[in-house]
Amino acid sequence: MNTFGELFRVTTFGESHGPAMGAVIDGCPAGVPLTTEVVQTALNRRRPGQSAITTARAEADQVELLSGVFEGKSLGTPIAAIVRNQDARSQDYAALATQDRPGHADRVWRERFRHRDPRGGGRTSGRETLSRVIGGAIAEALLHREVPALRVVAWVSQVGPLIAPEPPAGLSRVQVDAHPSRCPDDAVAAQIEASILEAKAAGDSLGGAITVRIEGPPVGLGEPVFGKVKARLADAFTGVGAVCGVAFGPADLEQRLTLPGTQFHRPRADGTPADVYGGVQGGLTNGEAVQVRVLFKPPATLSDHAKAGRHDPCILPRAVPVLEAMTAMVFADLWLSTLARPHRP
Amino acid sequence: MNTFGELFRVTTFGESHGPAMGAVIDGCPAGVPLTTEVVQTALNRRRPGQSAITTARAEADQVELLSGVFEGKSLGTPIAAIVRNQDARSQDYAALATQDRPGHADRVWRERFRHRDPRGGGRTSGRETLSRVIGGAIAEALLHREVPALRVVAWVSQVGPLIAPEPPAGLSRVQVDAHPSRCPDDAVAAQIEASILEAKAAGDSLGGAITVRIEGPPVGLGEPVFGKVKARLADAFTGVGAVCGVAFGPADLEQRLTLPGTQFHRPRADGTPADVYGGVQGGLTNGEAVQVRVLFKPPATLSDHAKAGRHDPCILPRAVPVLEAMTAMVFADLWLSTLARPHRP
Amino acid sequence: MNTFGELFRVTTFGESHGPAMGAVIDGCPAGVPLTTEVVQTALNRRRPGQSAITTARAEADQVELLSGVFEGKSLGTPIAAIVRNQDARSQDYAALATQDRPGHADRVWRERFRHRDPRGGGRTSGRETLSRVIGGAIAEALLHREVPALRVVAWVSQVGPLIAPEPPAGLSRVQVDAHPSRCPDDAVAAQIEASILEAKAAGDSLGGAITVRIEGPPVGLGEPVFGKVKARLADAFTGVGAVCGVAFGPADLEQRLTLPGTQFHRPRADGTPADVYGGVQGGLTNGEAVQVRVLFKPPATLSDHAKAGRHDPCILPRAVPVLEAMTAMVFADLWLSTLARPHRP
Amino acid sequence: MNTFGELFRVTTFGESHGPAMGAVIDGCPAGVPLTTEVVQTALNRRRPGQSAITTARAEADQVELLSGVFEGKSLGTPIAAIVRNQDARSQDYAALATQDRPGHADRVWRERFRHRDPRGGGRTSGRETLSRVIGGAIAEALLHREVPALRVVAWVSQVGPLIAPEPPAGLSRVQVDAHPSRCPDDAVAAQIEASILEAKAAGDSLGGAITVRIEGPPVGLGEPVFGKVKARLADAFTGVGAVCGVAFGPADLEQRLTLPGTQFHRPRADGTPADVYGGVQGGLTNGEAVQVRVLFKPPATLSDHAKAGRHDPCILPRAVPVLEAMTAMVFADLWLSTLARPHRP
Repeated sequence: MNTFGELFRVTTFGESHGPAMGAVIDGCPAGVPLTTEVVQTALNRRRPGQSAITTARAEADQVELLSGVFEGKSLGTPIAAIVRNQDARSQDYAALATQDRPGHADRVWRERFRHRDPRGGGRTSGRETLSRVIGGAIAEALLHREVPALRVVAWVSQVGPLIAPEPPAGLSRVQVDAHPSRCPDDAVAAQIEASILEAKAAGDSLGGAITVRIEGPPVGLGEPVFGKVKARLADAFTGVGAVCGVAFGPADLEQRLTLPGTQFHRPRADGTPADVYGGVQGGLTNGEAVQVRVLFKPPATLSDHAKAGRHDPCILPRAVPVLEAMTAMVFADLWLSTLARPHRP
Repeated sequence: MNTFGELFRVTTFGESHGPAMGAVIDGCPAGVPLTTEVVQTALNRRRPGQSAITTARAEADQVELLSGVFEGKSLGTPIAAIVRNQDARSQDYAALATQDRPGHADRVWRERFRHRDPRGGGRTSGRETLSRVIGGAIAEALLHREVPALRVVAWVSQVGPLIAPEPPAGLSRVQVDAHPSRCPDDAVAAQIEASILEAKAAGDSLGGAITVRIEGPPVGLGEPVFGKVKARLADAFTGVGAVCGVAFGPADLEQRLTLPGTQFHRPRADGTPADVYGGVQGGLTNGEAVQVRVLFKPPATLSDHAKAGRHDPCILPRAVPVLEAMTAMVFADLWLSTLARPHRP
Repeated sequence: MNTFGELFRVTTFGESHGPAMGAVIDGCPAGVPLTTEVVQTALNRRRPGQSAITTARAEADQVELLSGVFEGKSLGTPIAAIVRNQDARSQDYAALATQDRPGHADRVWRERFRHRDPRGGGRTSGRETLSRVIGGAIAEALLHREVPALRVVAWVSQVGPLIAPEPPAGLSRVQVDAHPSRCPDDAVAAQIEASILEAKAAGDSLGGAITVRIEGPPVGLGEPVFGKVKARLADAFTGVGAVCGVAFGPADLEQRLTLPGTQFHRPRADGTPADVYGGVQGGLTNGEAVQVRVLFKPPATLSDHAKAGRHDPCILPRAVPVLEAMTAMVFADLWLSTLARPHRP
Repeated sequence: MNTFGELFRVTTFGESHGPAMGAVIDGCPAGVPLTTEVVQTALNRRRPGQSAITTARAEADQVELLSGVFEGKSLGTPIAAIVRNQDARSQDYAALATQDRPGHADRVWRERFRHRDPRGGGRTSGRETLSRVIGGAIAEALLHREVPALRVVAWVSQVGPLIAPEPPAGLSRVQVDAHPSRCPDDAVAAQIEASILEAKAAGDSLGGAITVRIEGPPVGLGEPVFGKVKARLADAFTGVGAVCGVAFGPADLEQRLTLPGTQFHRPRADGTPADVYGGVQGGLTNGEAVQVRVLFKPPATLSDHAKAGRHDPCILPRAVPVLEAMTAMVFADLWLSTLARPHRP
């Protein structure tokens, strides 16, 4: 179905060639500071055409709030938000209808939905993630009020073979957004940007990894069996189109897994637990930063080189705010779930 | 919460030191061939004490079906199954209550649940996965009737630094179970078994990876946005205690991600699509085998070496049927969801 | 929350004084014939100002489909529909903010949501039922394709002390809509309409009952324990603002309940089962027509007589399509649920 | 499905002729005082054979808690409880398999579930309500800790044509249980008991009504659109086998609905709002007592008079604790839902 979350629920809708994309956010309590600008600012970070390394397609992506907000605060009722599609060109469909695009799910969709729509309803498009950014912006507003110490930040940590060193604690979105590649390391960012421009010119594409970090989480969020924090985030991230893997913990997790347990779990020099848990133990946040590495396939490229300028050669920079949004939605839901469990001694 | 699935729902219960573990399976339609033996056979594959390389703890793990089955078939009503705990020794608790075990979630649980129970209700125990194997056995019985071509098999593909080559299509559980390590490669299996015995003797532990493969899935299972097949499996697997990552597709996915898209997506020599999608495109099964690599941390070892014989130095061999069970539960749910969507041209 | 249904899910949003009302329908399979006109026709039956006996408030209630429909058929993706509010006058709020309206939930809402919005976000308004009519129109389109024999019809069976005789099987919406009161009995309809005009002139209001009938249901819809057909409909109907009771079965159910079981359950002269079950046995449809009597309170009247012309003195005529919509949503969901349970001998 | 509730979830299982009945309660937070005795005491109030006016069937109905409780308190993990069936006689089935019982759902079940089990899996039996009483007992323990002012009481207010006057506020379960009929009015109780004995002797049965009252609810429980308090209770009560209607508000609601709104809503002499709302306004509790009248059909009687002694001629006395249990489950869920919505000005 098209709803994400249990208590903080985001329902998304919209086809990339239809009239509008949107989301309905249910479960946001009353009194959370919220305006159109808050949501628009979040959407602007995802919008195409932000720099030379993204698609040249023009979409203003202006959001309109239809319900749930009054005089700058949430009402406690469902918040509906829509973005009109400006650049939907139905004349393209006849051509597309005649062939399946390599690397795309066109055939699979047709077998599943049995319909004539050549693009599977347009829900396969990365444009669908716009709805998630809306949900994430509202989740962040809620978290900001309820758990002000919690901070979510994501960055591009790998593109093709180029890998950035792990940034220190306290990394901010401003630091990430300072680079078109959203890689916060100056040297690697420059290499990545050159690499993406080269791929763009060649009609090629690049994959890689984004790392997501949640600093300052309360202790004990999550559920012990189903609904572990790991499981909630893994579900959230692998639900984004091109994602093909997740790994919790340090960047060199694969290497560390080759170590025996006595070394893997060895406490740090200062006596605190090892830094291998990615902030999650027994399914619950342990109070340390949660960190996840998210793997992305390179996008399937279009066979038609004439359209080469209209696709993203590397979706990772624009996927950063999408993963941040998914994270905020997960933590908003976890937070409300925790309130619904008044455990007492 | 403690329920997994939407239409095929498995609710698990039980603490490792309490009277019993169990599960209630709701949503299994009537007429599925089911007996106590079917479930017991599945549980026997997970049971401790199967070989020298697992824990020496003795648990018969005899299952009793309390409802939902009549004369060898499911009734269409909830199926409740329980397994009594034989080896629960409450006298151990006083000692445990006084200290948090390193690498365990004891402190986190105490902060979350605020209770006196020293082991967080015993739900952190790996023994909880017994309930999942019950659910998986029933899911497999349903799938066997509904989608007989679908086959789920998992194997140990890595322990510590030892990595097995990828087995050919058609690998069977009999071939996997032929080795105590559940690694189907004779040579690597022997190394792994020696390595685990060594760790056991040293009071140490080992992590690694299990690969799960689903052969013969129908085309088009899954949901396009939330509820992608990837997301459902990632949720299922990262919900198992020691799992710290998943990667969909070929075993060398990390290496392939460094390639540009034109190479990554390049069709195979015979013209069929590239083998990089792990059987999932646009969130849906594409009809090819689904394959996932699941990463496991080494278990946190007990500080008390006197108990060294009573823990699993490497949980991977016993986790194989647990991941198979989670997979079966996911696919049973996906199958019923598909039936509930009568798409027509 | 604001979602109705499990597999056919309708999420509603919108405040009566906000920019728009709307709904997102998720779970409608692909290929169902659907157009803007289908939904608009349903909304027109609920629209204010249809006759002298309803409110004089003017609302065009023009619907726009934003997603999920393409070339006259559903896509299998979420269907979002909105209706702009034309007659929202924010200048009224300052006045309303200063006093709680008798018979209204103003105080209760303020204590729950703690916000400044004087009308609890405007979700208490009967205008919210517009979203349900949208959901119902789409549910009916699905049912029409899947279960063409099923027909839902409701009528006003009581207003104040005036009670209409039970209409024969086969009653159509055309017959019901022939009277502004939506009471299909010519004589009683005339009395009811006079009675409503009298109440309107006096600034008074009237309650009564609507009877809902579902002819031609398949045998065996519903769930045996929770989710009985009775329970699903009772939930659906008592979720409409002024409803204060439901009774399944014949119009004279209360009288029949005073009879002993041997008389109550006595089969009809032709040997068929008694007509007392309201079409539901053991929680499931038994194939006969399902019939429910739904009780409505008179609306709470405004203390300000100057506004007397702008409220509905009797909401029952306009509530008829709302209850039909709720019924269609329930049966669409029951139908999909049944498909998801492939029971076999 | 077989789960009731969103945050306080009760999953029931068991066939009346199978090994055991039971329930799993998920969502009960840690630290709620709970023992086997608490649950057993609740079950004893429902148990058959309590007096001459109920069935002569003997069932000890001894409950066993399998999980979720430790040293007299809930653990915050799922609570599983089972009751073994002692009086299941499989030899009766051959006879029953050959004929459908009049007034029973045998035929409907067979068409739905397509199985050989002559009693539809035994889930149609009133014995299934045992599981609900378990869930209710735990819900009450939670409510007692969280909302100590809230009190749930139900009583038999009508049997056949005999109607009891409305008891004053503060009615206790002790007062209700003082009469085998669970009618708290001495005179009417005596008539009812004579009437039931007469029906029992004649192999006949009786229906009627139970009134449920919730005193001391917090203001603002419930949801404004779907999930109104009315809807939650209507769903809960009509989900009990023989229930065929509900009416919220005063006992004479049907008569009051014939009044115009100015009279219906007229405030009481002391200026407080009219007593017509049944404690619910705008879908939310308004702080006054919630009151609901629940209508019951007479049970379908067995054609075999030899078994007359083994059925309940009037199930209402034993249904009183079942409706109380459903009420407690609804309010426990509403309470946890409210905690999950931290509305702020």
